[in-house]
Amino acid sequence: MPRKSIDTLSENRIVDLLKRRFSGRSPFLEKGIGDDAAVIRPSGAKERWIVTTDMLLENVDFRRDWQTAAELGWKSLAVNLSDLAAMGVRPRFYIVSLALPVDIKEPWIASFYTGMRSVGNKNGAVLIGGDLSGSPKGIDISITAIGETQHRKIVYRTGGRPGDRVYVTGILGCAAAGLLLLKNGVRRGRTTAERQALAAHRKPRPRCAAGEWVAQNDFARAMMDLSDGLSMDLPRLCRASGTGARVYASRLPRVEGGGLAFDPLELALHGGEDFELLFCISPRKARALESTWPSGFPPIHCIGSLEPGTEVVLMEAPGKSSRPLAEHGYDHFKSGSRSGAP
Amino acid sequence: MPRKSIDTLSENRIVDLLKRRFSGRSPFLEKGIGDDAAVIRPSGAKERWIVTTDMLLENVDFRRDWQTAAELGWKSLAVNLSDLAAMGVRPRFYIVSLALPVDIKEPWIASFYTGMRSVGNKNGAVLIGGDLSGSPKGIDISITAIGETQHRKIVYRTGGRPGDRVYVTGILGCAAAGLLLLKNGVRRGRTTAERQALAAHRKPRPRCAAGEWVAQNDFARAMMDLSDGLSMDLPRLCRASGTGARVYASRLPRVEGGGLAFDPLELALHGGEDFELLFCISPRKARALESTWPSGFPPIHCIGSLEPGTEVVLMEAPGKSSRPLAEHGYDHFKSGSRSGAP
Repeated sequence: MPRKSIDTLSENRIVDLLKRRFSGRSPFLEKGIGDDAAVIRPSGAKERWIVTTDMLLENVDFRRDWQTAAELGWKSLAVNLSDLAAMGVRPRFYIVSLALPVDIKEPWIASFYTGMRSVGNKNGAVLIGGDLSGSPKGIDISITAIGETQHRKIVYRTGGRPGDRVYVTGILGCAAAGLLLLKNGVRRGRTTAERQALAAHRKPRPRCAAGEWVAQNDFARAMMDLSDGLSMDLPRLCRASGTGARVYASRLPRVEGGGLAFDPLELALHGGEDFELLFCISPRKARALESTWPSGFPPIHCIGSLEPGTEVVLMEAPGKSSRPLAEHGYDHFKSGSRSGAP
Repeated sequence: MPRKSIDTLSENRIVDLLKRRFSGRSPFLEKGIGDDAAVIRPSGAKERWIVTTDMLLENVDFRRDWQTAAELGWKSLAVNLSDLAAMGVRPRFYIVSLALPVDIKEPWIASFYTGMRSVGNKNGAVLIGGDLSGSPKGIDISITAIGETQHRKIVYRTGGRPGDRVYVTGILGCAAAGLLLLKNGVRRGRTTAERQALAAHRKPRPRCAAGEWVAQNDFARAMMDLSDGLSMDLPRLCRASGTGARVYASRLPRVEGGGLAFDPLELALHGGEDFELLFCISPRKARALESTWPSGFPPIHCIGSLEPGTEVVLMEAPGKSSRPLAEHGYDHFKSGSRSGAP
């Protein structure tokens, strides 16, 4: 339940409330409220089925003039597929509720669904239904995505242990750089770095293939996707696993500074919406992970380790002094109304 | 995809567009876009799993001051469970996306989830997860409900044949009467009829047990739930089944006129949100249906028959003259901003 503008304290409190008071039990339910997605065990089925949902609101999660309808459709589904990627399962279906103001016309709707279909097709998910309604306010998008385990492999946030190496896929802070460009009035990138940043914000690529590969090879003890930024999300994985962590600033894969007027380290630590994978692995498997990592996948980097205790700290490099990794992730970089959108 | 304020023509056109251009195929998909819900066939599973979604927006689908938080939670889930009831399957799970303005406090949220849990528990569905976000505008609720067939029995909208008897459960127009009372400033019913009408609007009872019973006994060739009113929904069943229909006004179960300043027949024909079941049955099974109908269920009434052709007509009684049943359902009776809500 990430990437949102309810302030984090109250969101965490509400999620705790739901877990405590409203968690349901069912013989068909393997995992309910609290992870990236719920896990269902249909009677007799070979595999587990995974369900996740995300809502995107205009002027909170996106602005209509900052991306095309197709890009918005792409991103809306990508966000959900990323939750499935984070559990290492294969996307199968999605269902879409859409509330639309009257000024939205059919071509816009067709483009929106075309964008969803593009990222759905790339990752094996097909549209199975939905709901349409008129909205007096703005566009509301709610998607539920459904995935299937392969060979019953699934990775939760809870399995990390002290000593595990912590890895991330891709480059951190890229989507946040794109968002900051948009806030500064840049709509088309003038450099490769700018174009990459804008694309990362507008059309994030869910790491479904990489997530499934990691799960199939038993390479992750815990995994999640980076939606709110490393400084928000790594503590979540640590809390779920009952560990602390140490992150080395020098090892964070970050955007090139050239042409971007932002601090790449700040973006890598606190920028949201990268939808890269964050996972931890037993140290004795780390070499095998790195040596067998498929060349077609985004790069991976070992950024630190899980530690005993509960502290999540940032060090410049191994052996240097450390400071707590302050949790000020997505809120500082979000599209929402509190940061200047209308 | 019913009960909505996008005008019906354009909604139907969009749904057609989606069916035509965006319907996905999958070996695990039995039924996609177009019925009350999608039907999934997990590999190896004994049963089919059914997925449906519905979005409710403040001041379009509900007003915060017209019902309690618990009633709103109840209704939001009930609407989704009704889609499962309409296919004759058993509710199992639900997942909730909720966007909340900052003035909504934790007790309201707890009450909302308590209301959902009440109707969930009554019908066998448990909460498995969701998404929370802040809303700059109003409350947005999007729920996806998941059900399971029993002995693989499932009823679509498509199986009706000319000659079938058409049945409805319960009383038609009751929820619309409640809505009209609310619009007229009545918050607490002064008579039994008013109290029933308000309750029907605020806390509709999804007919899950009845729907499952009908499916298990092979008593329906086609079934759906009445969300937009008989005059909108019966033509949908007819189109899906490739038939026309004839409805007898004299047979429509309707609210008592006493104390309600509305025409009960108009409400029964065009009032929305009753969430009763509408189904058709082979004439040779009709007697068995009526004689074995469990006494704990809402009453059923035979209101007419499916006919050859495509016309849906209304007759006062058998043998009397007929007129087309005009499709002006829910739009005339909805809570939405176009009918006076702020």
